[in-house]
Amino acid sequence: MLCLIDQTVLPHEKKYIRCYTCNDVAQAIKDMIVRGAPAIGVSAAYGLVLGAAEYKSDDIEGFINHIEAAAETLRKTRPTAVNLFWAIQRMLKVVRDNKDKPVDDIKDMMLNEANNMAQEDIEINRRIGRWGQELIKDGDVILTHCNAGALATVGYGTALGVIRAAHEAGKNISVFADETRPYLQGARLTAWELMEDGIPVTLITDNMAGYFMKNGTITAVIVGADRIAANGDVANKIGTYSLAVLAKENDIPFYVAAPVSTLDLSLESGQHIPIEERDEREVTHIGGIRVAPYGVKVANPAFDVTPHIYVTAIITELGVVYPPYCENLKKLIKK
Amino acid sequence: MLCLIDQTVLPHEKKYIRCYTCNDVAQAIKDMIVRGAPAIGVSAAYGLVLGAAEYKSDDIEGFINHIEAAAETLRKTRPTAVNLFWAIQRMLKVVRDNKDKPVDDIKDMMLNEANNMAQEDIEINRRIGRWGQELIKDGDVILTHCNAGALATVGYGTALGVIRAAHEAGKNISVFADETRPYLQGARLTAWELMEDGIPVTLITDNMAGYFMKNGTITAVIVGADRIAANGDVANKIGTYSLAVLAKENDIPFYVAAPVSTLDLSLESGQHIPIEERDEREVTHIGGIRVAPYGVKVANPAFDVTPHIYVTAIITELGVVYPPYCENLKKLIKK
Repeated sequence: MLCLIDQTVLPHEKKYIRCYTCNDVAQAIKDMIVRGAPAIGVSAAYGLVLGAAEYKSDDIEGFINHIEAAAETLRKTRPTAVNLFWAIQRMLKVVRDNKDKPVDDIKDMMLNEANNMAQEDIEINRRIGRWGQELIKDGDVILTHCNAGALATVGYGTALGVIRAAHEAGKNISVFADETRPYLQGARLTAWELMEDGIPVTLITDNMAGYFMKNGTITAVIVGADRIAANGDVANKIGTYSLAVLAKENDIPFYVAAPVSTLDLSLESGQHIPIEERDEREVTHIGGIRVAPYGVKVANPAFDVTPHIYVTAIITELGVVYPPYCENLKKLIKK
Repeated sequence: MLCLIDQTVLPHEKKYIRCYTCNDVAQAIKDMIVRGAPAIGVSAAYGLVLGAAEYKSDDIEGFINHIEAAAETLRKTRPTAVNLFWAIQRMLKVVRDNKDKPVDDIKDMMLNEANNMAQEDIEINRRIGRWGQELIKDGDVILTHCNAGALATVGYGTALGVIRAAHEAGKNISVFADETRPYLQGARLTAWELMEDGIPVTLITDNMAGYFMKNGTITAVIVGADRIAANGDVANKIGTYSLAVLAKENDIPFYVAAPVSTLDLSLESGQHIPIEERDEREVTHIGGIRVAPYGVKVANPAFDVTPHIYVTAIITELGVVYPPYCENLKKLIKK
């Protein structure tokens, strides 16, 4: 059984959702009970563990087919974040590499691998934090978008990991959090996480970020990522591109913090990253309340792609990468 | 009695608020029952008419003091839009120019002047529409922000006046409307107005605008204005500056539509325009529902200033003004 914090009702309610089957996990990912690229990846890994447990025979061929089908169900939940596909691939490798072993042993190995991924994720985020905090200056006021925090990962966070590490290093920093419509991850999750940690945070609506960049309040921007192409183009929560353009216009560094598992070097550029279009109700309703006229047409792309030219640096667990990204991202993963 | 549509409950409810006193009108402006720079101006004019009616003596000195005090109450409601101050000034001129006449006659003249302003406003908007629609091409997809429509004026609208005029001229256009947090004027008012007129509209959250500029969907931006300085800097609803930067980055024309009464040539640049900071509840709550953690710090500037370098043209009732604005805005009002 996988127990997930229900992120749709935070911060008012701390409710847990219990997933007993692989389909339960797929539904939780689709409904954004769990969200954030690294958290989705690890949840999917546990989804396959639950999927494996559902298989009651010891026929290995049948088992592999069963797991492949479960993997396909999970792959279909959300198209943009690559960590989902990466985590599934890693779990499938355990199955394929051990198909000469008894099914029950493979099930144990899968659980082991999922546990490793969860453990590693926290360690990876702490490393991202350590590398990233060196870029943060005492007195910085950091804008962040969406939630790339503990809730988006197994713990500690990517963008918020950098912020936490800078705070832990004794730097006097504060944060501006975009509320991040339509899903309000900034208002509901990021503001809450930072308040819990005692890091000063000011909540703004997304369209105020430019104002506080132009008037000199904001001195750095840090966001997470859902997929990074070989040339350094970054897919992340809708609105990230606008922040990057505004940061460039105002000479403010724009940092992306993400684990190496977010890199998709198979894609030459960001234009090939599929962008998820979500339900229009997320835009027409807020907290169950309709805020738009009945029958209005709505667009709801959940992500956008920020061209690499706007990205000052990409902070990973293996180090900070600067342009030219084509060259330096390849070097990074060869380390 | 001044009867106002309650814009806080649109589009779900069409409720009218009756103002019997000048203070009622001031409260309605403060609470955004009525909003939009031109609509605020004309409402304030009627507020002074109601204020005049409250004065029961025929002593002219006392009357002038009473009206000056009423004017001061109205001036304190909202600091950014200059049309409020312009309308009050125009009403005070009627009083001052006629102080040799009986108080009852001045009261009639004030009502007359307010009626004229209301009539003129519609005519001004139609002229803005006629000038502006020449800039709109068949097939344009126009982004607008907040509500610069019939509801923001006495009728027809400024930015939406241009859109209406282009539609009436038979041009095949469609509109993307930013929902415009925190007050959701785009979702609640602009989307509704355009749907009523049968003009195709797609509702998006504010942080999606950049995405649709970058991918080539949006081909023009038109917004209203709350105050325009002598150099062409434009104060308008928070988020306008970000759109202007994104439009420039994507080679999309950025137009401002506003009556001449929005010009404040006494200000050299936009940095002198006071920016209203509104109640934090507008950010922490949506439709009465709390969306942010208790105790979170909030910023809520209601406007921002877009530097003139981002403004392709300013559309007024006297014609379209192009840079250099310092020179051409002065020329315009000498016409």
